[in-house]
Amino acid sequence: MPGWVIEKYPAQIDLLARHGHEIGLHGYLHERSNEIRDELYWLGRGLDSYKAHLGKGPRGWRAPSFAFSKHSLRALLDAGVEYDSSLMGDDIPYALRDADSNRSLLELPIDWTLHDFPHYAHNRDLGYRMPISAPQRAMEVFRSEFDGAWEFGASWISVWHPALSGRLARFKAVLELVDYMRDKGGVWFARLDQICDHVQRLIADGRWTPRVETLLRSAESR
Amino acid sequence: MPGWVIEKYPAQIDLLARHGHEIGLHGYLHERSNEIRDELYWLGRGLDSYKAHLGKGPRGWRAPSFAFSKHSLRALLDAGVEYDSSLMGDDIPYALRDADSNRSLLELPIDWTLHDFPHYAHNRDLGYRMPISAPQRAMEVFRSEFDGAWEFGASWISVWHPALSGRLARFKAVLELVDYMRDKGGVWFARLDQICDHVQRLIADGRWTPRVETLLRSAESR
Amino acid sequence: MPGWVIEKYPAQIDLLARHGHEIGLHGYLHERSNEIRDELYWLGRGLDSYKAHLGKGPRGWRAPSFAFSKHSLRALLDAGVEYDSSLMGDDIPYALRDADSNRSLLELPIDWTLHDFPHYAHNRDLGYRMPISAPQRAMEVFRSEFDGAWEFGASWISVWHPALSGRLARFKAVLELVDYMRDKGGVWFARLDQICDHVQRLIADGRWTPRVETLLRSAESR
Amino acid sequence: MPGWVIEKYPAQIDLLARHGHEIGLHGYLHERSNEIRDELYWLGRGLDSYKAHLGKGPRGWRAPSFAFSKHSLRALLDAGVEYDSSLMGDDIPYALRDADSNRSLLELPIDWTLHDFPHYAHNRDLGYRMPISAPQRAMEVFRSEFDGAWEFGASWISVWHPALSGRLARFKAVLELVDYMRDKGGVWFARLDQICDHVQRLIADGRWTPRVETLLRSAESR
Repeated sequence: MPGWVIEKYPAQIDLLARHGHEIGLHGYLHERSNEIRDELYWLGRGLDSYKAHLGKGPRGWRAPSFAFSKHSLRALLDAGVEYDSSLMGDDIPYALRDADSNRSLLELPIDWTLHDFPHYAHNRDLGYRMPISAPQRAMEVFRSEFDGAWEFGASWISVWHPALSGRLARFKAVLELVDYMRDKGGVWFARLDQICDHVQRLIADGRWTPRVETLLRSAESR
Repeated sequence: MPGWVIEKYPAQIDLLARHGHEIGLHGYLHERSNEIRDELYWLGRGLDSYKAHLGKGPRGWRAPSFAFSKHSLRALLDAGVEYDSSLMGDDIPYALRDADSNRSLLELPIDWTLHDFPHYAHNRDLGYRMPISAPQRAMEVFRSEFDGAWEFGASWISVWHPALSGRLARFKAVLELVDYMRDKGGVWFARLDQICDHVQRLIADGRWTPRVETLLRSAESR
Repeated sequence: MPGWVIEKYPAQIDLLARHGHEIGLHGYLHERSNEIRDELYWLGRGLDSYKAHLGKGPRGWRAPSFAFSKHSLRALLDAGVEYDSSLMGDDIPYALRDADSNRSLLELPIDWTLHDFPHYAHNRDLGYRMPISAPQRAMEVFRSEFDGAWEFGASWISVWHPALSGRLARFKAVLELVDYMRDKGGVWFARLDQICDHVQRLIADGRWTPRVETLLRSAESR
Repeated sequence: MPGWVIEKYPAQIDLLARHGHEIGLHGYLHERSNEIRDELYWLGRGLDSYKAHLGKGPRGWRAPSFAFSKHSLRALLDAGVEYDSSLMGDDIPYALRDADSNRSLLELPIDWTLHDFPHYAHNRDLGYRMPISAPQRAMEVFRSEFDGAWEFGASWISVWHPALSGRLARFKAVLELVDYMRDKGGVWFARLDQICDHVQRLIADGRWTPRVETLLRSAESR
């Protein structure tokens, strides 16, 4: 949730929280961190809005437009964020390690394939001049990704928006997809913070070691 | 209908009106209200052309390119327009309230999904470099939207253009879609002014209250 | 055929002509007539190349990128061209009349729907970043257009390019489409110059009058 | 493989080589040769990185973004490269002859149709705002191209990327496609260097003569 939205629609945030949804942080005004000069200022404003309304900081962050910057890792670690979900470097969770401080953030990876814009967006202001798929066509894509993840034991994290996937015709198709997943069995439906808990426990217990991607300081001067 | 078109093709306007079609206003030269400096001048020219030929002002407005500006609400209310059909904020009609004057415009919402450009447009001058769908593929989308609207009792408002949806192959598919809707039953086929009448009556009789979206003056200085 | 191509590949032009194909003119270097300053110069060069190799001027013209300019009608009439095939104003042939001189050009209309770029093009240099359809998907579109034209007695004029529609997989699908058209019956397969002959004869015999679109001089100062 | 990647990920290069894959050269930083000023410098850096790690120069080159420049032919010949695989001028291998030196490079042609970006890419930074196809839709295209190539005895060269075609759902579909090809029979699965060997042998034995495309010096001043 962008900080601005938390400020303007507090009742909707409460409604979401009351129904068991996790509230993650998603920038302040959906700014692209890697294209603005004062990215830390805007991260701070987002964190402030979040804390002011929810009483504590967010456990998870998704960069608006997936624009994770070269400063993001350290800034998120400093803010106490435990996981990021903006990068596309694997099919299962992995770790982002800051070479200088040796601290790590958990990465819960996403992919454009499981985002709803490629299937449903058409918006001249955003430069989206493209065909709109029927719900059953989009579900072909989402289901094929699920089948692949199911067969090989990977994670499947969708990025869906109320104005697109929330339309009546499309949400009917979402419900059918969830039924398909349930029927297939052996699937854990979880919030990202629950996945984060689970992975942290596995690591703490020494039962699993994530692949580590180390971000060097030299990345900043690239 | 853009005002310029009314001026240049009055016989076609009369033909449409004679066959029971509603004539709404759609700008003067299909200008984007939110990108031009003198938007009220062009709104005025559109209104003048409309009144000069049709004898009275339009009941409904659709912003060219759906570009409803921060001045549109007040300007349309001042012009006596009763409904707008350019925004995408709901699945059923709702009200746009001007916070200062407490006056409201009815919104009959549309969506790019029910527009024919995403399915059929290809035009380099407009930046539309994209695949053209077969009529049956476009109808998959339109029909799924209809089925969703039908199941939950929502409105379904298409935005179709003669040069695209009016092609022989496509209009055959439109006729089949209309048959499908008829066969399903429980559907009211209506012009937008008739929907406006219906909703106004429900409100006046106290039988239904629309969701209200209030536009603040502060929106102007955002 | 662009004039430059005629100059550089005369043997290929002869091969086409020998196999009964019509050679129309398509600019000199595929320039967009409506975006260049010296459009008449380039039209002249195209005509010169054409005449130098083929012995007489072209009967038909298709504007590169369909960019028929405000000067095109008069210039083509002056050059003795009999038909244009660049505009999208109808489902059957019609006439373009020059208001000043009262001369007319026959228009054999095309449409992006029957062009192969929307279905097969992907080329970063031309700004075509879009999906490539399978041949059977493109044929769904072409066949639906054919079925529409067949039912209502319209023309069906494809704009296909060797580098796209000429690929092995796609041309196999073209052959199947031609079989489909043949089997349906009642179809005249003709070159554009033959259609031009046919329409000219119908008009001369008084058996048919085309719809006339008049281009005013005022169009130039628009 | 871009030279930079060879430098940064030598272990991965070794892994690929150990498993029987060919390592071709693909620029240094995926630069577009035809848009940069110092293209020969970057070609040199790519060659240096390649030789430093692999002990000898590459046999094959694929221009990043397929941007084969007017200097590429001579520069690749000077570097001892034996084949290029960046151009789209035929369905089977052909020769690129340098008119001045009468030396030739073998061209193993590709096409956007067999590239995975048109089917799977969606990336705002690269300007790819387009739908993502389901694996089975992409395979329709790849399989139709294969069927065409199979029927007429042509080559079929895919350009697939780990981050796109390597996703679990998609690679499952790739495996099915390979099974389909195997079952059809009469197919040679080969690396590009093996195809190069084969064609060179056919030419040396006088059993086959490739079509020759001659690049003139005048091409440079075009």
